[in-house]
Amino acid sequence: NRSRTIHHTIREVRAAGNLDNLRAVAQPGSPVASEREAQGAAPTEYRGRYPFLDTDVFKTLEGIAYEIGRGEADAETTDFFEESVALLESAQQDDGYLNSYFQAETVEKQPWDDLAWGHELYNLGHLIQAAVAASRQMGDRRLLDIASRFADLAVRKLGPDGQNAVDGHPEAEMALVELFRETGNRDYLTLAELLVDRRGHGTVELRVFPAEYFQDNAPFRELDSVTGHAVRMAYLAAGATDVALENGDETLLEASERLWRDMSRTKLYITGGLGSRHSDEAIGDRFELPSERSYSETCAAIATMQWAWRLHLATGDTHYLDAFETVLYNAYAAGLSSDGCAFFYDNPLQRRPDHQQRTGAEPDGEILRRAWFVCPCCPPNIVRWMSELQDYVATTGVGADENTLFIGQYTTANIDSDGLSLDMQTAYPFEGDIRLTVTASEGASRTLALRVPAWCHSATVTVNGESVAAEAATADGWLRVEREWVVGDSVELHLDMPVRAHGSHPAVDGTRGAIAIARGPLVFAAEQEDNEAPLDDIVVSVDDVSRARVVPTDLDGHAETQAVAIVLPATIAATRADSELYPELTSGRAASAGTVNPSAATPDASPTQLALIPYYLWGNREPLTMRVWLRRDIPSVTTERK
Amino acid sequence: NRSRTIHHTIREVRAAGNLDNLRAVAQPGSPVASEREAQGAAPTEYRGRYPFLDTDVFKTLEGIAYEIGRGEADAETTDFFEESVALLESAQQDDGYLNSYFQAETVEKQPWDDLAWGHELYNLGHLIQAAVAASRQMGDRRLLDIASRFADLAVRKLGPDGQNAVDGHPEAEMALVELFRETGNRDYLTLAELLVDRRGHGTVELRVFPAEYFQDNAPFRELDSVTGHAVRMAYLAAGATDVALENGDETLLEASERLWRDMSRTKLYITGGLGSRHSDEAIGDRFELPSERSYSETCAAIATMQWAWRLHLATGDTHYLDAFETVLYNAYAAGLSSDGCAFFYDNPLQRRPDHQQRTGAEPDGEILRRAWFVCPCCPPNIVRWMSELQDYVATTGVGADENTLFIGQYTTANIDSDGLSLDMQTAYPFEGDIRLTVTASEGASRTLALRVPAWCHSATVTVNGESVAAEAATADGWLRVEREWVVGDSVELHLDMPVRAHGSHPAVDGTRGAIAIARGPLVFAAEQEDNEAPLDDIVVSVDDVSRARVVPTDLDGHAETQAVAIVLPATIAATRADSELYPELTSGRAASAGTVNPSAATPDASPTQLALIPYYLWGNREPLTMRVWLRRDIPSVTTERK
Repeated sequence: NRSRTIHHTIREVRAAGNLDNLRAVAQPGSPVASEREAQGAAPTEYRGRYPFLDTDVFKTLEGIAYEIGRGEADAETTDFFEESVALLESAQQDDGYLNSYFQAETVEKQPWDDLAWGHELYNLGHLIQAAVAASRQMGDRRLLDIASRFADLAVRKLGPDGQNAVDGHPEAEMALVELFRETGNRDYLTLAELLVDRRGHGTVELRVFPAEYFQDNAPFRELDSVTGHAVRMAYLAAGATDVALENGDETLLEASERLWRDMSRTKLYITGGLGSRHSDEAIGDRFELPSERSYSETCAAIATMQWAWRLHLATGDTHYLDAFETVLYNAYAAGLSSDGCAFFYDNPLQRRPDHQQRTGAEPDGEILRRAWFVCPCCPPNIVRWMSELQDYVATTGVGADENTLFIGQYTTANIDSDGLSLDMQTAYPFEGDIRLTVTASEGASRTLALRVPAWCHSATVTVNGESVAAEAATADGWLRVEREWVVGDSVELHLDMPVRAHGSHPAVDGTRGAIAIARGPLVFAAEQEDNEAPLDDIVVSVDDVSRARVVPTDLDGHAETQAVAIVLPATIAATRADSELYPELTSGRAASAGTVNPSAATPDASPTQLALIPYYLWGNREPLTMRVWLRRDIPSVTTERK
Repeated sequence: NRSRTIHHTIREVRAAGNLDNLRAVAQPGSPVASEREAQGAAPTEYRGRYPFLDTDVFKTLEGIAYEIGRGEADAETTDFFEESVALLESAQQDDGYLNSYFQAETVEKQPWDDLAWGHELYNLGHLIQAAVAASRQMGDRRLLDIASRFADLAVRKLGPDGQNAVDGHPEAEMALVELFRETGNRDYLTLAELLVDRRGHGTVELRVFPAEYFQDNAPFRELDSVTGHAVRMAYLAAGATDVALENGDETLLEASERLWRDMSRTKLYITGGLGSRHSDEAIGDRFELPSERSYSETCAAIATMQWAWRLHLATGDTHYLDAFETVLYNAYAAGLSSDGCAFFYDNPLQRRPDHQQRTGAEPDGEILRRAWFVCPCCPPNIVRWMSELQDYVATTGVGADENTLFIGQYTTANIDSDGLSLDMQTAYPFEGDIRLTVTASEGASRTLALRVPAWCHSATVTVNGESVAAEAATADGWLRVEREWVVGDSVELHLDMPVRAHGSHPAVDGTRGAIAIARGPLVFAAEQEDNEAPLDDIVVSVDDVSRARVVPTDLDGHAETQAVAIVLPATIAATRADSELYPELTSGRAASAGTVNPSAATPDASPTQLALIPYYLWGNREPLTMRVWLRRDIPSVTTERK
């Protein structure tokens, strides 16, 4: 479905005026400017509300570069790529500067005047990432030239001899490290190091938002917990980790690991979503994880995966791959509609029956996924990420295991590594069976390491139909098979995938006394559409979950691919419509029963079936009511405290 | 403590430049303008961010009018009153217009250009309320003349022959009804009727915020639930109820009652706070009542009391007085610090250990109560409300009970009504004993009706020491004593005030499996300062609450008056620091124990004592950690479903 989302995105980017913005700032004498003059085009107003709209183009180009590299791009897609590159070449100033907002005639602000909100390095970062993708995937260095010129300007402006300042929105850090990797120019790594180290010293000019919003309240190494704007935080952490990967700075890596550990124990939603507040798009306090107001911005999901991936590369720890997987199949995947043409900006874990989401940025409401946004950071971010997921399936040479091919994510794909080629077939994440067939081999002995996710309690592996005494998955999460592989060898991995019930840490108020249901990497959600009783009235026990059945579903035709649903027994504990909001539990009230107010609700309990779908598929139908966390039938105090 | 808060407010209003703003727009030829000319004063910039800062002056004047009327104002207070009145007289335009923002030379916007955000009628409303207070309490009609001239302009501008529009912020509705009551000019009532009826037809120009924010999505009579910006909603409802009180519009009153009922069953915090979201300062969905993100703006508390009072006047129903009392002693009272010089804008029911509140409006953080705000609507609103609470103690002639004096709130006060004077002495809300002594009587038979709050399960009354066969409190909530009163008669009311435990409706996710503790009208909160074990680890059962003790406290000297604290047995269920955020509850995990991740936390349970203070007193000391809702030790499924 990538092509559909890409086409949709190309059209939305065109319609939103992003290319027009670039066209309007074509440099005198450039081909685009000459063309505009010939057409007698008048100066046009900058379109859009934000100074970072060029990044919509960059992110889209980054995704397209992968599609072109794979030979899967059609004419509409390559045309957009070519037109965009030409516009960028024409728009870039002689000094390397490139930003269609600050260059616009109708915008009064001048370049570099507003580092806090100008997003110029953020723009540069996404330009670099598109450029690196085009260079690596297509062998096309035109964008890399543009990006390098702008990056050189940034080095002069903000490098060791430049201004002691940072961009209000971290993002360029990891891009500059990539540009260093791609070009070998250490200036870019140095700038990335500076941007990481300078932040936290109060250099960001504050107007409305606090220093935490920009992670400028304390240096990265000294932060005690992820804080502020979720996307900014996770991009910064990913960038810092990238810096540590290249310069071997152990205190930086330690800080990154420590912040991740704290986040994963106190601030991540079960979906992998990050960001508990709509206000300031902020992460929130430890254990502040209300389902109803989960912000879990789709961009934060991408940033969290980027961070997790880099921590995995730095440490080899599979917990980061587990987290990557959780985010990928839940908080991230939910951001895109089943038809590929509509997006969630925020990803709540609950929609109440009377919910009407109204956000400031989208005054006409944000009832379900939208085709585009006034602040359209998420859709093209989904595009690029979807296109480049191939990069995150397998790795080699992590740590001491130089002769090992690590397969960390399971999907239908071809894997080539140092003369060993594998064809991977699976219906994962809906099934736990993965078949790998060797399609090329140089015959030398290699170790295949297959990740056993933390949620899996039993994994078995066969080679050519025979159970092998594979070194069992240990605490490091890898199931290893060493062999001299020959073409035609078949490896079958089976990951046990029962339906699970999860509780939550007792300090989480938002999900206390509630249960969430998962299978494999998928978190499940109940939608009212599939259930007769009001979701708020349905009570589920751990025992109910043990009797769950897994059934195939295409959501009555609303899902593009066959998914799985879960059906389990449950109880309806209906509440009287006039029941009190805060019933008295002490005995006093009973003594005066009937006099003033009715006592607590007396529900009718009756058995029912509860149907759930994968969380990421929610919101593809009406109506909206949805719950990830269901009321739990708590059997006893001791169990509660287990 | 009123005088301290008033002095503080006067100084903050002066320092914030509110009077300077008025001075700057003095009309040519006015005394203030002449004085400015004589001093050679240059034009000054409008100070402050918002166009409604005149209301800070108006609200302060309203409160001061009561203090002057009671003869309790000192020179600083009366000087402020006189100076303000003079400035307002000089600033008002010939056509009656008065708004120091739109009149300012340095403000480009013109009067009436921006009804959505201009707050001109909102300003007018607060001017009227100050004027009516000065007229009634002081017999001073100068402000009333100013207000009437501005109101006459509003009638010309927006009345039956004027523009079909409303102000973006409801407030003027109830003020215009008051102005009608005070002047007898029916034009004001007509304008109030129009403002109520016009809203909901999409006339408010939308830019960033949605129509719900302004209650402009549906007419008041058709709203199915309170919605949008909490303060706007409650002011509108109070105004609509006031209109119905005067014009007898039953459908309007029915809509108001219906909305109140829905709100009280689905959207009010246990403290009486209204507003569950920081974003858009909005009310939120039904049952969306997270403690940690409770907004419960102090102004919304005042507006809710105004609405409740008007509904009580219209219906005689004591439930509204119960609600008034809940808001007064909890959501409202918490807005002011113990020393009277610092304020909460929002009133959460929980502060987590690592909380750092950062709001957009207050970039330097809002850790505790603040001396003043960039958007200072709440502090002077507290001032006026505190000063005029005397109006809400007793009423006469409600409904058919023309010969009855209803005493609805208990406090130390003198009550005079048609020849009967009472001296009321009580330590309420800390104690349930109220003594009324007759200090004057004309000897005719009168009924005293004493409210028995809904939380009270046992009330007794004696007259001159003898238990009287008072008509027992019935469903109408009044305990009546009829008698020919003579001077010296003593009535003693005893309201049983045990410590109560409250649960919450099962659809409220934010407080599921939690318990709140109350006594009388006071909701109690645990602060970390008084407890050794982390509050998140403390578990309380209903049985624990039944063994609670009430003890006096002055918060180690931090409370100005002697309050009461509650101490009860509880359990510490400590959680391991490294425990999982979402432990698996199903059996699969146990089978592989020790392999991948640790299982759910195994707490050490040990007995402890839990100390609580009245919620409104929280946040007068460090540190910040606070909980109203405590983890509940749920004994069994059946109890949970009770």
